[in-house]
Amino acid sequence: MIDFSITLSPRLYETDAMGHINNASIAAWFEVLRVRFMESLDVDALGRSWILASVHIDYVGETFYGEDVTGRIVDAVVGNTSITFHGEMYQGERQTLKGTAVLVHMEYETKTTVRVPDAYREAINSRRNA
Amino acid sequence: MIDFSITLSPRLYETDAMGHINNASIAAWFEVLRVRFMESLDVDALGRSWILASVHIDYVGETFYGEDVTGRIVDAVVGNTSITFHGEMYQGERQTLKGTAVLVHMEYETKTTVRVPDAYREAINSRRNA
Amino acid sequence: MIDFSITLSPRLYETDAMGHINNASIAAWFEVLRVRFMESLDVDALGRSWILASVHIDYVGETFYGEDVTGRIVDAVVGNTSITFHGEMYQGERQTLKGTAVLVHMEYETKTTVRVPDAYREAINSRRNA
Amino acid sequence: MIDFSITLSPRLYETDAMGHINNASIAAWFEVLRVRFMESLDVDALGRSWILASVHIDYVGETFYGEDVTGRIVDAVVGNTSITFHGEMYQGERQTLKGTAVLVHMEYETKTTVRVPDAYREAINSRRNA
Repeated sequence: MIDFSITLSPRLYETDAMGHINNASIAAWFEVLRVRFMESLDVDALGRSWILASVHIDYVGETFYGEDVTGRIVDAVVGNTSITFHGEMYQGERQTLKGTAVLVHMEYETKTTVRVPDAYREAINSRRNA
Repeated sequence: MIDFSITLSPRLYETDAMGHINNASIAAWFEVLRVRFMESLDVDALGRSWILASVHIDYVGETFYGEDVTGRIVDAVVGNTSITFHGEMYQGERQTLKGTAVLVHMEYETKTTVRVPDAYREAINSRRNA
Repeated sequence: MIDFSITLSPRLYETDAMGHINNASIAAWFEVLRVRFMESLDVDALGRSWILASVHIDYVGETFYGEDVTGRIVDAVVGNTSITFHGEMYQGERQTLKGTAVLVHMEYETKTTVRVPDAYREAINSRRNA
Repeated sequence: MIDFSITLSPRLYETDAMGHINNASIAAWFEVLRVRFMESLDVDALGRSWILASVHIDYVGETFYGEDVTGRIVDAVVGNTSITFHGEMYQGERQTLKGTAVLVHMEYETKTTVRVPDAYREAINSRRNA
């Protein structure tokens, strides 16, 4: 388990005509969460060699405008050439979202997947054991 | 199987510093595809009583700026209180994306799930058999 | 003069293929600044009866990813039926953006402009004299 | 005068809780219009050496979801180191938006403004006289 969190303030333009936070904005929030977590590892800030392979989001509760959202990375599992991130979002104590994303490590020149560098592996595993 | 398609032209602001179409924009494209399909059923244009329950997107190939994207609904399965949409996106003959979304039908006043109206059931099933 | 500020952290998806923060994201940031200022007046949180009449943005310096942005409302001038907002954005000491927006106060039922309520007038003028 | 137009279909996520198309989306539409016009000149598709200096948008009428928008470049004036674009948007016969943007031509290595290449000058002026 990992305990990394960020705070997001819903923006008025992120609402839609239904009065909810739009689902595209929520996909964007999970990207913010994932990027901030990766940057916090202090290995390679922009992670230019990562490709998003898949995203899954469960909308477990409504997200309202006017209340801060806490985004948490609750786990990150390093495979051979990929990392799977498990995230959750809350408004107060109430869970609103659950998401999973898989990033694949690529070598741009050859467009092939390559082993996740040990620096990431160690940085993430030390967080998991913290 | 269903054969419904729309064309999307990637926009420059939908690219990011990596030079790819950003994943949040892609989640937005799948919403456009789903909404246009629902509107095409001509049952209830805005679908105000539908709540997104989950979204899953597989990034099966790179999406490039400068080439139109064809978004297809390839199937839609009506359950008791929900509809599951299966979509795909292509640039030319090359598949770039695959997505699944589940919409749940809600009664706003009581915030409870209610059976998908027969009008939707019939409209979708007539498309599946077309 | 008014001294109201917020902090914004540029998000990776707000960059574009040129490596800059996209100008549409910057228009969105000015909306966030304006809305947070209006909410801070504690008169009418969502301001449902305000219509944006015009926006002007000068891109006075490049905005980079990876550094927080400070958005400031430096003045707000209340007219008869409108409010003109003057904003600025900075990365550190360096000014990156300057913007002006005019919001018009509308009565929705009749779709006519109506005088800015005194509660806003007083709240804004007390900020200007603070 | 120039006569260049594109069609944009408002997307549901571009609406906000007020039920209007959000102003940040409209700034994005003007970028789409400007970029498509520049691409149509067939001089340098991505225009990597252009920096946005300023944007001005007048919201002259409400933009509604559910009706296509026609964006027009009505004029483009080439200065020494910049181009000023004049655009308009319509829903049917009804004008909804008016916008002006100034792009400055930059040499990236030296970060100085440089004269607009003659190829752009000629391409734009031949459109103005068409």
